[in-house]
Amino acid sequence: MSGPARGFPTSEYRARVVRAQARMAKLGLAALLLTTEADLRYFSGFLTRFWESPTRPWFLIVPATGDPVAVIPAIGVALMARGWITDIRSWPAPDPVDDGVSLLADTLIELAGPGGRVGVPMGLESHLRMPLADWGRLKAQADVGFTDDGGIVRGLRMIKSEAEIFKIRASCAVADRAFARVPEIARAGVPLDDLFRRFQCLCLEEGADWVPYLAGAASPGGYGDVISPAGPDPLRLGDVLMLDTGVIRDGYFCDFDRNFSLGRPDNAVRAAHAALIDATQEAASQVRPGQTAGDLFNVLHRALAQHGTPGAGRLGHGLGLQLTEGLSLISGDQTVLAAGMVITLEPGLELGPDHLMVHEENIVIRAGGAEFLSTPAAREIPSLEG
Amino acid sequence: MSGPARGFPTSEYRARVVRAQARMAKLGLAALLLTTEADLRYFSGFLTRFWESPTRPWFLIVPATGDPVAVIPAIGVALMARGWITDIRSWPAPDPVDDGVSLLADTLIELAGPGGRVGVPMGLESHLRMPLADWGRLKAQADVGFTDDGGIVRGLRMIKSEAEIFKIRASCAVADRAFARVPEIARAGVPLDDLFRRFQCLCLEEGADWVPYLAGAASPGGYGDVISPAGPDPLRLGDVLMLDTGVIRDGYFCDFDRNFSLGRPDNAVRAAHAALIDATQEAASQVRPGQTAGDLFNVLHRALAQHGTPGAGRLGHGLGLQLTEGLSLISGDQTVLAAGMVITLEPGLELGPDHLMVHEENIVIRAGGAEFLSTPAAREIPSLEG
Repeated sequence: MSGPARGFPTSEYRARVVRAQARMAKLGLAALLLTTEADLRYFSGFLTRFWESPTRPWFLIVPATGDPVAVIPAIGVALMARGWITDIRSWPAPDPVDDGVSLLADTLIELAGPGGRVGVPMGLESHLRMPLADWGRLKAQADVGFTDDGGIVRGLRMIKSEAEIFKIRASCAVADRAFARVPEIARAGVPLDDLFRRFQCLCLEEGADWVPYLAGAASPGGYGDVISPAGPDPLRLGDVLMLDTGVIRDGYFCDFDRNFSLGRPDNAVRAAHAALIDATQEAASQVRPGQTAGDLFNVLHRALAQHGTPGAGRLGHGLGLQLTEGLSLISGDQTVLAAGMVITLEPGLELGPDHLMVHEENIVIRAGGAEFLSTPAAREIPSLEG
Repeated sequence: MSGPARGFPTSEYRARVVRAQARMAKLGLAALLLTTEADLRYFSGFLTRFWESPTRPWFLIVPATGDPVAVIPAIGVALMARGWITDIRSWPAPDPVDDGVSLLADTLIELAGPGGRVGVPMGLESHLRMPLADWGRLKAQADVGFTDDGGIVRGLRMIKSEAEIFKIRASCAVADRAFARVPEIARAGVPLDDLFRRFQCLCLEEGADWVPYLAGAASPGGYGDVISPAGPDPLRLGDVLMLDTGVIRDGYFCDFDRNFSLGRPDNAVRAAHAALIDATQEAASQVRPGQTAGDLFNVLHRALAQHGTPGAGRLGHGLGLQLTEGLSLISGDQTVLAAGMVITLEPGLELGPDHLMVHEENIVIRAGGAEFLSTPAAREIPSLEG
């Protein structure tokens, strides 16, 4: 399974840093302190599955001028040094006495200056990936002023470069090919948890580096929720099967689902599927830069309401380095849509109590409107042999 | 792929809660506030891959008496309600104005009482999985006193029940079977990233629900680090191939690796492998409850030092709900070993600059010593066809 070159040229990372520093200057920030996988990777390119281990904290500092500085556990130095970051400071983590706090405090004072304002992502979708007690120690030790980053990192990450869009498209293509092969593995009698295993293999065979997300369900006339893991119950004739996956290819996610009918779908399921596709296409045809996320939510919601009860909750979201990131398609999200945003359109319809159907596609917003990154599904729900 | 029953009986969760409440009483805690996947699952059984989405915070409160209360996004209510938790309070997340903070504050005041002390995991390995700005709002809104949980949750989770050990053993057995099939997929000329994909399929075929962790490397005479993702370079005759995996089966991890030689191993590699196995067996034969993690580190370190330069960093760690959790085998970890602890033994040897070899097994500590959960590897490094 070969493919395009991995990673990005250094110029991609430098451009991200320059954009961050321009916004930092406006807010008077002397540095950004980053602690999460996605934020570190955005600026450093540091790609590893080792984040699955919560033992060690990792830090990246973006100063007001110059290149980022990594303050990381020794176990990560070799990998970090293969990227573009040259100033790498490390300690032998885990250290129960001082797990990087002093080193980080010293580095922050050096880079931000005494009393300098250090922005930390503190808003929606963020968290601080270090122990709270160490955060307290850091605030006591480092003579700098920690403050919200003003949404700088979230805002930068929402607008994808062409190089990022290329990678997300490749990830979508993997899932496209895997979904096309579902008829090979799904038939009545196959336990849903087995089907999930086999589907993950299809994703890997089609080029996923790994499969961080798979949820779904199978039941007649729609399903009760969309986040459950699979149980051992076998697929049955008449089930609506939904598979929702986020695969990783070279560090970027796709996130979309497909619905299938085991045997002939009933009229309600057929109609609901067609309505979901129509709503998706309606939203895709109307989306333009300058609208808000709330505006796009309204388009989807109106289109769905013509056919039934729209699903509760959000009807789409941003994606990229994370399965979900950035904006939400909810009425209250005033984020202004812009060219380069990669989002999901995720309409849902409630067919009855505990009987939901959800459809999802991935698009990038261009100056003239939406470009699909996933291959849009047909109106007719595909039937699998019973 | 069938198997033993999924999940735990309610009695398992009630026992965990009772143990927590006994420790809370000693510390004068009116409640515990939990925010991470593993901590929530430990007390509620809430199992979903949806944690991959960082958008929404999730909260579980363990009161001083009575059952835990879930304060969670509406999207998770159906799944939570299928478990044993009956008091489930929800809000339509994400909400950019008030993302659960008021609901959580009200619930904490109700359960802990005004001014009640609420324990939050703040120590090693922990983090607070909610936006820092919302944490600030919560502290301002909730008339309770937040404090460190005194290591209660970490301490409880370190000692596994027999039911948990059963699940970890099942997860180890999956990886055992997958490692046994490596000769089917590894030969000279296969790109390492392709091999990684195929190995993940083997894990799935052998019963993994998903494969959250795979790292490894292949190069002559040892490898440079143990956390890198795979690149496109093909395996070559003379390489030492290491695969280190953590698979999930019914919510519990294994975490161990295996080394292979592409073709005949040279003497240094053979000797290093044998020394790693010997050190593992030495540690397994000597481990007893009542020793400290630091004591066990010393046993491994001494055994390794007889044969060369021990790898830097820790030589093992706890595992269970997480790939890594609890204690670390480092000289400074004074955690007292106890029956029921499940840990890795992970000795490493430096064969030269950037030439490391690491071996890893999973054991449970019993009153009389170690019981292997992974099937211990042979002293002789296995040779694969070149």
